[in-house]
Amino acid sequence: MHAAYVESLGGTDAIRYGLLPVPRCGPGEVLLRVEAVAVDNVDTFVRSGRFRTDITFPFVIGRDVVGTVVDRGTEVTTPRIGDRVWCNSLGHAGRQGPTSEYTTAPVERVYSLPAGVDPAVAVAVAHPAATAHLALYTHAGLRAVETVFVAGGAGHVGSALTVMASRSGACVLVSARADDHEWCRSSGAATVLDYAAPDLAEQLRAAAPDGIDVLVDTSGRHDLATTLELLATRGRIVVMSGMDRKLECRAGDLYTHDRSLLGFAITNATAEELAEAAQHVTTLLTDGVLRPRHIEELPLSAAGEAHRRLEAGEARGTRLVLRPGN
Amino acid sequence: MHAAYVESLGGTDAIRYGLLPVPRCGPGEVLLRVEAVAVDNVDTFVRSGRFRTDITFPFVIGRDVVGTVVDRGTEVTTPRIGDRVWCNSLGHAGRQGPTSEYTTAPVERVYSLPAGVDPAVAVAVAHPAATAHLALYTHAGLRAVETVFVAGGAGHVGSALTVMASRSGACVLVSARADDHEWCRSSGAATVLDYAAPDLAEQLRAAAPDGIDVLVDTSGRHDLATTLELLATRGRIVVMSGMDRKLECRAGDLYTHDRSLLGFAITNATAEELAEAAQHVTTLLTDGVLRPRHIEELPLSAAGEAHRRLEAGEARGTRLVLRPGN
Repeated sequence: MHAAYVESLGGTDAIRYGLLPVPRCGPGEVLLRVEAVAVDNVDTFVRSGRFRTDITFPFVIGRDVVGTVVDRGTEVTTPRIGDRVWCNSLGHAGRQGPTSEYTTAPVERVYSLPAGVDPAVAVAVAHPAATAHLALYTHAGLRAVETVFVAGGAGHVGSALTVMASRSGACVLVSARADDHEWCRSSGAATVLDYAAPDLAEQLRAAAPDGIDVLVDTSGRHDLATTLELLATRGRIVVMSGMDRKLECRAGDLYTHDRSLLGFAITNATAEELAEAAQHVTTLLTDGVLRPRHIEELPLSAAGEAHRRLEAGEARGTRLVLRPGN
Repeated sequence: MHAAYVESLGGTDAIRYGLLPVPRCGPGEVLLRVEAVAVDNVDTFVRSGRFRTDITFPFVIGRDVVGTVVDRGTEVTTPRIGDRVWCNSLGHAGRQGPTSEYTTAPVERVYSLPAGVDPAVAVAVAHPAATAHLALYTHAGLRAVETVFVAGGAGHVGSALTVMASRSGACVLVSARADDHEWCRSSGAATVLDYAAPDLAEQLRAAAPDGIDVLVDTSGRHDLATTLELLATRGRIVVMSGMDRKLECRAGDLYTHDRSLLGFAITNATAEELAEAAQHVTTLLTDGVLRPRHIEELPLSAAGEAHRRLEAGEARGTRLVLRPGN
């Protein structure tokens, strides 16, 4: 089969596109004929070695996939041959990635794709939407009456956070650049503020006079000196980006108000947590409310180019989706 | 009645000792004849205004009390007249403190004192032990198989943390000065390390090769650069002291391992949370395993002197307990 893979960790030029044997199903696994693969930032971190995880070479890159079940290992009853499924946890922790014509996946990590959902749409939202679910519910324990601030509300994860939190009954404030305000409102934001406004803190204080309960900074700026005191008692800041940024605050500003900083990376999610997130994502896909803003489809052979563009910041606002056979 | 009170926020010389009217029970309150009052650091923060809370003047100082019910307001069925109870949440959020011959308390904030428990012992452990319970269970969600590191294991809170966590089935490591190692072992610590050892981090790594799950820094040193990377995946650091200390870390060190910083102050605990903590504390008092290391009893009139000694750091290792009628 054709596959995009690396033989050692390194830069984008380490990515090969060539023939590898079709993998065989182990017990409890299914073999998928791949229909669509997303290209995520985390894929570039695994490929470069910046995010350390257990992999074997040749290592097929990628993480998220939509495909059709074409074979099943022993002990597998569902899904069935011919079922269309998605998976968002390949390509790390000992599992090969899916940027190839066929891939295997453990059954507890594959989820039914609702009928009528475009594979490219599903694979494009799988990572940001599952990330948003885990941030809001698994880690921050969002409750319906709370106030959420999404710093960077127009991005892939920011949009999914806005959709989910607003549908959960939370009041959602977001910051974004002016071009993106209409998009953020259409995602469900109650209040959209200019991310670069010099008085952003005052505007947030006015919009959330009782304080912010959950703050998710998708941009990784982490200006705790400003944001921490905008939090309500028991407010939570979810930290999930900005690898080398410094987090800095006064201990009293955290503890005298029972505030917390919750770090999380989707890679650490258990199969059970991912399955719960998938159930939510599947519901929203069925309802048609999770929309990738812009998808660009590329052939599987363009995997190296896609990684290069992502690392160069040339894919802003666009989800790159690779499709075999194009 | 005799009472220690202030007429405005300020230094220890603002504390008056004199006569005030015996308070009356409102609905849902009991009137206690005071038997013992603890002197906590938090009392000094409320008195000085460093910890802002709703109080009215003249303000009777203090927070924790053991007393006997001598009157009940309407709507009160338990406790009964003559019952001995304890309370650890007076003196803030609109409630007067108990450093007086009589005090009122809402019934949902008073708990039965087990028969045979010395009031001075109970009042001495009430605050540190409730703090330890809230830190470990309410905030850090401690599970039986986890590894806990108590930085500063010999203090009042450190000892209570060690007793509770070890009895919960956790493996408890503590740091302390050499003089205190035997005390820490008797509290249940599996491993006791020299707090000033230059290779403390390496010793901790050796003692907890799979990482620390819950770290409580009672000393408020907050050396995150060293401690954060000793944490296991999903490890939690409870931040509850060191008001003006800076917390500083790299975002990636927090989020790539799902680590979190959980701030907490007992003042923010709900009546339900305090009641749960009290149930645990009462069990341990009954079992005789919560022991204050050293108690010094003083008359109620010595409240000002007690605050002064606490602020000057002259009460290390000793719980100051005020008793009326001495």
